[in-house]
Amino acid sequence: MKRITIYDVAKEADVSLATVSRVINGSDVVREDTRVKVQEAIEKLGYKPNAIAQGLALQKTTTIALIVPEASYFYTGQIINGLIDVAKIYKYNIMLHTTTEGITEMNDIIENVIKSRVDGVVIFNDKLNKEELNQLTTYQIPIVVIGNRMSDETVGSVYVDYAKLACDYANECIRNGKTDIALIEDRKNPAMIKQLRDGLSRAFKENGMEFSGYIEIPKEYRSSYLFLKEYVKTNPRKDVVITYRDSQAMAVLNVAKEEGVDIPNDMELVCILDSKYNSMARPQISGFKIPDYDLGAVAMRLLTKMLTDENDVVDKEIELSYIFTPRQSTK
Amino acid sequence: MKRITIYDVAKEADVSLATVSRVINGSDVVREDTRVKVQEAIEKLGYKPNAIAQGLALQKTTTIALIVPEASYFYTGQIINGLIDVAKIYKYNIMLHTTTEGITEMNDIIENVIKSRVDGVVIFNDKLNKEELNQLTTYQIPIVVIGNRMSDETVGSVYVDYAKLACDYANECIRNGKTDIALIEDRKNPAMIKQLRDGLSRAFKENGMEFSGYIEIPKEYRSSYLFLKEYVKTNPRKDVVITYRDSQAMAVLNVAKEEGVDIPNDMELVCILDSKYNSMARPQISGFKIPDYDLGAVAMRLLTKMLTDENDVVDKEIELSYIFTPRQSTK
Repeated sequence: MKRITIYDVAKEADVSLATVSRVINGSDVVREDTRVKVQEAIEKLGYKPNAIAQGLALQKTTTIALIVPEASYFYTGQIINGLIDVAKIYKYNIMLHTTTEGITEMNDIIENVIKSRVDGVVIFNDKLNKEELNQLTTYQIPIVVIGNRMSDETVGSVYVDYAKLACDYANECIRNGKTDIALIEDRKNPAMIKQLRDGLSRAFKENGMEFSGYIEIPKEYRSSYLFLKEYVKTNPRKDVVITYRDSQAMAVLNVAKEEGVDIPNDMELVCILDSKYNSMARPQISGFKIPDYDLGAVAMRLLTKMLTDENDVVDKEIELSYIFTPRQSTK
Repeated sequence: MKRITIYDVAKEADVSLATVSRVINGSDVVREDTRVKVQEAIEKLGYKPNAIAQGLALQKTTTIALIVPEASYFYTGQIINGLIDVAKIYKYNIMLHTTTEGITEMNDIIENVIKSRVDGVVIFNDKLNKEELNQLTTYQIPIVVIGNRMSDETVGSVYVDYAKLACDYANECIRNGKTDIALIEDRKNPAMIKQLRDGLSRAFKENGMEFSGYIEIPKEYRSSYLFLKEYVKTNPRKDVVITYRDSQAMAVLNVAKEEGVDIPNDMELVCILDSKYNSMARPQISGFKIPDYDLGAVAMRLLTKMLTDENDVVDKEIELSYIFTPRQSTK
């Protein structure tokens, strides 16, 4: 498997390696006729300049690391799409890293990221903690965090304020006399759930009450559905149930149907993270349109700014908004 | 943003750059006391060897390119998970590229992939054509294609035989007297649908009949659901409806419910590509468990073999099997 190398080009054009390198890297110290000769040799041989050697010459790898949780959710996919579209515009390559569980894993990834000397890093990970982030910032690589608000000198963040979202929505419910609001635990997204819970607590406090509707799912239950089937037997129905992901909302919908609870007339249901599956459910599930694609796109754009001279003027904390999409599961 | 470089290490250890480079790359021509001195300097300064410079020294980037369609489907996510898990074991980095639509796009990506001089390429793209693949093989980079059976000297493939799957299933249906079988078009996955259609045609032919149940979705319809709502009004119901993706199966389910067609008693429904949403639907949708994670994992393992001495003995065409998971939408 012999590939055409820079040596072959140098031989063909009868010039030195340094000259070929200069032509490839756009140096202007090469004479025009030499440049043409090298270009002709490159075309004749079908030589593709090695982006890595090029990167070293320019002191730039034009690569960023993207760290996401295991890529299985529709939501993550949209974030990646947004990020890649912007990366293409600015000619950045994406090195993909995924996280599963536990700190060791994350440390391995950080080690890898640092070794590969990328220009910057974008992290979307609900379970990322401050300590891990600090480890990354030690190396002074520009970082953009998606989803969490945690900015400092070298860290930017692009996020949706879930606490505000939950607080506003709960205030609206309370105004309409719906005070029995439940939030269902989501083990896979503890940080998001904490934000939602904080927002609900704030809204209740503002109305002279205390939020007590957080429903934990005991570890022994394999799924929200199986737990909720038991839960409804001994607990009164709520006015409004809030879930984070579509699959939990569907579990609530299925249990309600099986237990003869009419949604939305007996109980309302809202899914925070909207997805196409919410519209396919019957009744269709109301949700919040979170700008997933935009989170990725804006994060990448912010990183490109941090990597260039725009760094000084850049606002490193960007909050994106959301839209409530009422469907059949709310009145 | 000053980073610690190899120059700083050389200065700290009072040795030449070449010596530091030799220590980093594990050369054995370095004296033990010098090696210790360099190691101490590396640790003191917190220097991380540059994987790119290291790669050049070893003539190896240890990076592979992964080309997938826009990462929005649950299925793609699982393929990526499998691939990355194996890549981690073999210490490969993943450079992520996504495709949207049209040939220009694909050519751009090929250009990028070639320029970055990766060790190998894994492609999962239903719309990849032979011409594009040929362009990649020109550069003699080992390639593994997921989903399509298209192997040659430098190309391996890992796939599920959808034609066989459809043929076997249709034969089973026909044996049970269910001959009115429909397959619904999926514009996003033309190659998969073609395989399924071929398999159905084969089964019908084997039984002395002709398959005529392919349902095209006219371009003017924004969704399968909207089209099927019209379609059912003027067409008799089928014995069995087959869809490729879960969202199309849900469209069939919703239309059937709204039109008073009882699934599975009046009509059966099967979704080829199973997903967790199929179990959340009511009735639960029967499907085929396609080994998505395994497709990614096996493809990556095959590529690691092609990249090493194992290349000569390796079987470049690997067929993975599937399991039918009957649920409530079939009898």
